[in-house]
Amino acid sequence: MLVLGVDGGATKTLCAIADESFRVLGVGKAGPCNYNVVGVEKARKNIEEAIQQAYSSIADRQLRGEVAEIGCFGIGGLTTQRDYDVISSKIIPLNSAKKRIVVNDVVVAFYAATNGKPGIVVVAGTGSIAYGVNKRGESAVSSGWGWLMGDEGSAFYIARQALALAAKSYDGRGRKTILTDMFKEEFGVEDFKDVVPKIYHEVTSTNIASLARIVFSAARRGDKVALKILRDAGGELGQAAVAIARKLFTKNEHIVIGVTGGVFMTDPTVWEYFKEYVSKRFPKAVFTSPVKHPVIGALIMGYKNLNIEVKEEHKESLIRSLERKSETPYP
Amino acid sequence: MLVLGVDGGATKTLCAIADESFRVLGVGKAGPCNYNVVGVEKARKNIEEAIQQAYSSIADRQLRGEVAEIGCFGIGGLTTQRDYDVISSKIIPLNSAKKRIVVNDVVVAFYAATNGKPGIVVVAGTGSIAYGVNKRGESAVSSGWGWLMGDEGSAFYIARQALALAAKSYDGRGRKTILTDMFKEEFGVEDFKDVVPKIYHEVTSTNIASLARIVFSAARRGDKVALKILRDAGGELGQAAVAIARKLFTKNEHIVIGVTGGVFMTDPTVWEYFKEYVSKRFPKAVFTSPVKHPVIGALIMGYKNLNIEVKEEHKESLIRSLERKSETPYP
Repeated sequence: MLVLGVDGGATKTLCAIADESFRVLGVGKAGPCNYNVVGVEKARKNIEEAIQQAYSSIADRQLRGEVAEIGCFGIGGLTTQRDYDVISSKIIPLNSAKKRIVVNDVVVAFYAATNGKPGIVVVAGTGSIAYGVNKRGESAVSSGWGWLMGDEGSAFYIARQALALAAKSYDGRGRKTILTDMFKEEFGVEDFKDVVPKIYHEVTSTNIASLARIVFSAARRGDKVALKILRDAGGELGQAAVAIARKLFTKNEHIVIGVTGGVFMTDPTVWEYFKEYVSKRFPKAVFTSPVKHPVIGALIMGYKNLNIEVKEEHKESLIRSLERKSETPYP
Repeated sequence: MLVLGVDGGATKTLCAIADESFRVLGVGKAGPCNYNVVGVEKARKNIEEAIQQAYSSIADRQLRGEVAEIGCFGIGGLTTQRDYDVISSKIIPLNSAKKRIVVNDVVVAFYAATNGKPGIVVVAGTGSIAYGVNKRGESAVSSGWGWLMGDEGSAFYIARQALALAAKSYDGRGRKTILTDMFKEEFGVEDFKDVVPKIYHEVTSTNIASLARIVFSAARRGDKVALKILRDAGGELGQAAVAIARKLFTKNEHIVIGVTGGVFMTDPTVWEYFKEYVSKRFPKAVFTSPVKHPVIGALIMGYKNLNIEVKEEHKESLIRSLERKSETPYP
């Protein structure tokens, strides 16, 4: 019996296939599958490729031919009913599993963080979004409005702030920062002004977001402007969690709060600021370690849907076997 | 003897043709000519159309056939030497005047605001930029980094802030604001969430910037969030002026400061905050009324270049005749 899980967003798509003993047998990786970002055609191709790869990497020939009992798909860009219809009819292969569950990727991250128990997850990658469920099963979403209207605290947000503050520093409108020189170096130009055409030439949220690493590096070198950007990002992400906590939980509940995404995983700075912001408002919040593999959440959803209990040790087995499997080059 | 002036940016291109008695004889208007926004082909067509229209609207048949003695072109998007080369060789018609001067449109706005005398101009339309010249002829620019990296205080900036704060209000992450309902009404949707696909469907800096009018309208209705956005915008634009003042002027000089662009012209709110911000730092700053017709600056540049003095009364004559001419439907 196989369970198939997919975690796909604006940057990449991951697929993991596990058996009834909570062992990940196959993994696959492909490009983005958020159709708002890459279009329906490309999204479908990438998701197919990730699934294909995952199946091909299963060692046992016989299992390789089996159709998964259930497939759980966490897909970025699923917000409206229309998104759901497009994604489930045109993007996810119909024959990929006997039963399919299609959700926003934040739900998958939620399961990875809390094992499906009441709590909150905050995702900060290229974009940012928070999601929570309480013990009555009520859920709430916060942030996730995309690069133009929001996604405060995301890598895109951090990078855009850094570009703006580097420009302010250059103009003498803002505090001096080494970000200006670091962007010059990154783009190989002599004058920071020459960064402009390069930035506008290929504006995609992913391209811009990737510049966030420069902010982390400037912060490690003690740059005050970079540190402030990261502190603000932590606060913004904290705000998203707090908005959900206020809706779903009481002040005295032990709310389990998990995080995932590049902004939290790159280094602990934003995570620390995030915890500080939330703890001040919800002193009894319990923070779980940043989730390295949200795709595990898709598998957990799958098991639960089949009424198979997933204990902490099962989750650990899934993570260990996924990591082992990911190290092996695909066949 | 004719002098031709063009003021062209990301939203529209204006052309005015005047004679040696400081009377505007012809005016023309066409679409945008910032080639970063609309491409070289479209920019060239629009500028040609504006000039053509201006010539056709000259009442005197004989003058209609004359080639202008000088043409001054203030063109948005001119920042680097490469921009200059593209604009002067591929966008501005070669035979449009016996002599041509090509500058960034902020320089034309500067001439319109200060009559070419030392001072500072701040432009806040779709984008924002500040420019100043001191009595030694030294010049400086601030802001103008485009919608992604800066343009703080511009209509795009105001609109983006408003969208983000409306989303925060919706999520319960931020202060309540009527902006959420006003955007719903603007886009004819039942739920603010449904604004999202509409916004992302046609993201151009001009489309987004046009939503700034909703912020002005919310502020007039007393909305605190909208007022804060406009106050911040005034402060950001003030910062751009102050950065230039610090570079070019001393604390005790009577610096002439002019402004132009839709953000200042729509209503006086941003202008008031702007003056407050600058006055605190440069108490002797002198503010001229917002410039309604920056294209007049292109004509002033032209006269000056031909060593024709332009007195205050001449400038007024130019403005009056331009306004009269603009009221007349083009032939």
